[in-house]
Amino acid sequence: MQYFSAMTRRTTEPPISWLMKLTLDRPQLISLAAGFTDNETLPAKEVGRITHEILRRPKTARAALQYGSTIGLPQLRHQLLRRWQLQDQTTNHQSRITSDDVVITNGSQQLLYLVTEVLCDPDDIVLVEDPTYFVYLGIVQAMGLKAFGFDSLATLKSKLEHLKRRRLLSRLKLLYLVTYFQNPTGRTWSAGDKREALAIVKHYERAAGHRIYIVEDGAYRDLRFEGEDVSSFKSLDPRNERIVYANTLTKPFATGIKIGYGILPAPLRRAVLNSKGNHDFGTSNFLQAVLARALEAGLYERHLGTIAAAYRRKRDAMIRSLDASLSQSARYCTPHGGLYVWLELHERTKTGTRSPLFRRALEAGVLYVPGEMCFCQDPSRPISQNCIRLSFGAPTVEQIRKGIKLLAASI
Amino acid sequence: MQYFSAMTRRTTEPPISWLMKLTLDRPQLISLAAGFTDNETLPAKEVGRITHEILRRPKTARAALQYGSTIGLPQLRHQLLRRWQLQDQTTNHQSRITSDDVVITNGSQQLLYLVTEVLCDPDDIVLVEDPTYFVYLGIVQAMGLKAFGFDSLATLKSKLEHLKRRRLLSRLKLLYLVTYFQNPTGRTWSAGDKREALAIVKHYERAAGHRIYIVEDGAYRDLRFEGEDVSSFKSLDPRNERIVYANTLTKPFATGIKIGYGILPAPLRRAVLNSKGNHDFGTSNFLQAVLARALEAGLYERHLGTIAAAYRRKRDAMIRSLDASLSQSARYCTPHGGLYVWLELHERTKTGTRSPLFRRALEAGVLYVPGEMCFCQDPSRPISQNCIRLSFGAPTVEQIRKGIKLLAASI
Repeated sequence: MQYFSAMTRRTTEPPISWLMKLTLDRPQLISLAAGFTDNETLPAKEVGRITHEILRRPKTARAALQYGSTIGLPQLRHQLLRRWQLQDQTTNHQSRITSDDVVITNGSQQLLYLVTEVLCDPDDIVLVEDPTYFVYLGIVQAMGLKAFGFDSLATLKSKLEHLKRRRLLSRLKLLYLVTYFQNPTGRTWSAGDKREALAIVKHYERAAGHRIYIVEDGAYRDLRFEGEDVSSFKSLDPRNERIVYANTLTKPFATGIKIGYGILPAPLRRAVLNSKGNHDFGTSNFLQAVLARALEAGLYERHLGTIAAAYRRKRDAMIRSLDASLSQSARYCTPHGGLYVWLELHERTKTGTRSPLFRRALEAGVLYVPGEMCFCQDPSRPISQNCIRLSFGAPTVEQIRKGIKLLAASI
Repeated sequence: MQYFSAMTRRTTEPPISWLMKLTLDRPQLISLAAGFTDNETLPAKEVGRITHEILRRPKTARAALQYGSTIGLPQLRHQLLRRWQLQDQTTNHQSRITSDDVVITNGSQQLLYLVTEVLCDPDDIVLVEDPTYFVYLGIVQAMGLKAFGFDSLATLKSKLEHLKRRRLLSRLKLLYLVTYFQNPTGRTWSAGDKREALAIVKHYERAAGHRIYIVEDGAYRDLRFEGEDVSSFKSLDPRNERIVYANTLTKPFATGIKIGYGILPAPLRRAVLNSKGNHDFGTSNFLQAVLARALEAGLYERHLGTIAAAYRRKRDAMIRSLDASLSQSARYCTPHGGLYVWLELHERTKTGTRSPLFRRALEAGVLYVPGEMCFCQDPSRPISQNCIRLSFGAPTVEQIRKGIKLLAASI
């Protein structure tokens, strides 16, 4: 293997593959680990209707079944821009952003990969939340980047100050932030915190000698079942200079239809498109046509109502079960959207894959994501060993209740 | 831009983007440039029937609309392995290859990207055909690789000998070969040449100190409209050690449904899967379910007959037009499959994008791919300036006739 690339030598098997194998080997296992979505509410009827409509007319059928362009289907990019404008109450009038700034990708994951690839060389630096989305940490590892974690605006400031003092700001390329119902904590960034964080980052750009991009991952924004929407980081960037807005239709609509997108500042967009030209020169036109029509016909919007009700039920079941059996031994918040609940156990209770707890839980028949997987390798702070990410996305209400009971017994 | 990654600084806009823009700006233009496929034979009815069948039953609908695994849908991988075994008359009994060695990707392009990424660091070496598929040269450029070209087994040998003498064999990671109806020449590798090339490569592995992989791109294998099929390089590798077989269902079936695949030696497969985990953790499950059923139900196989007839007609129209107007001033072969005819003009006739010919043709209303785009930057030989790649995939018979007439007049 030593003749493989440096990237390969840095890359290990993603933790998610290992967790998925555990599930496959034990069909009876209740998995509160995977970030899969609800099976009951998948839009089979809607997709059936749309594909029928597209394929029965030769003109639309041919357009959908032929190659498209690398940037993506114009109708879909237009719909996505409009949707973002409506959500953020931003119009073309105030903003320079057009549908030419929207790039369609194979899920938002590909966008995260491309943006990181075109910005970062090995030993470059990224800032991420503490904890953060662990698949992004896989990209960080593979590309040989240094990641530093922050869990408040004060820590963000001190990390930047630290980089400045050590003359490392020139290597800082981006901040990666999951801004809605975060994976794994379920927390949402407030509008005020976004404004403040942006001001902080801008302040350090001069010392960095270049733009510091903020990559805002809004993957769970449309999975809201309570409370009000919050304006995106992107809405604070009407000149389209600094913020990458990454989002996906995959999780809210159908995870089998993998379509993500980004709204990107021009230099980044050009670089991402050139690189996507090498990766695959464009995402499946057929899938894009299906989603463009789902958005146009209002089916996507209507579907959000359906899933909000389903996930709220599941969230309630999980929180009630936690309240009944773990309120003394764990701290957790009630998320208003997304798929996750983050548990903090007593400091001495270790949750890692080699911990007695993880094994006891597995033997009892329940799987969770050890919290330690969600922290980057930042040497300036210890990694919390006592946390757990739980997902209420895929399991049924009954499985959630039983799973939490088994977990509580194991703890 | 100097704070972007080294890859970005190496990457230029792909030539195909530029050619596509030319086409969009001139709707009347006859494009004999793009590698698009025939519009008339796209399988709208078939895809309509399949999606209906999948989506009307809750069980199959849910399976198709939910996330799958990074390696791809088991039924599809099974079908693809069986198809390859039938084509190459290889059975499990003789070969160690199983469907666990098959990886599904977003078109075969993603497989080429992943394989090259996991094997190569900047300044590593690849060998390619002279000329070769120009999108692969985009990957070579972006990753900072050195490519050397060969146009016969004798040149292959001499290039390897040259690398050995200069002690560069340790940097040689792979050969990239388009083995059926090659893009751009239309040539097919014979079984004998494959055996000989493999023996040559094996011979140099000791001096290299590691495996030298052969990446066999069979993208046009199923677009055969004349003659007999030839066994793949992969069939010469029953222990699955050395050959990557890359192929696609996209071009033969529907280019809007982007599904490629590879049969990979185990160490490469593991590295590719780890990397794909970071790229997108799996290709759209819905598209995979559609193609699995197209293969199972025999619709894919039947469709090959339809397109073979259509492309043969188009190929005939192109060759007849060339015979009528360019037989004196150009050399070309009659391809038995694929989408391309390669023209060699008089040595003094330059065909590049800055040549008078390219501009005259554009003004007359016809676009071609300048041959020079299809040669790697190998300093040991000059790049042919007098060639043209023509595609008969997308244009109608009438457009082909008119296009060749306009091209002949420009020459």
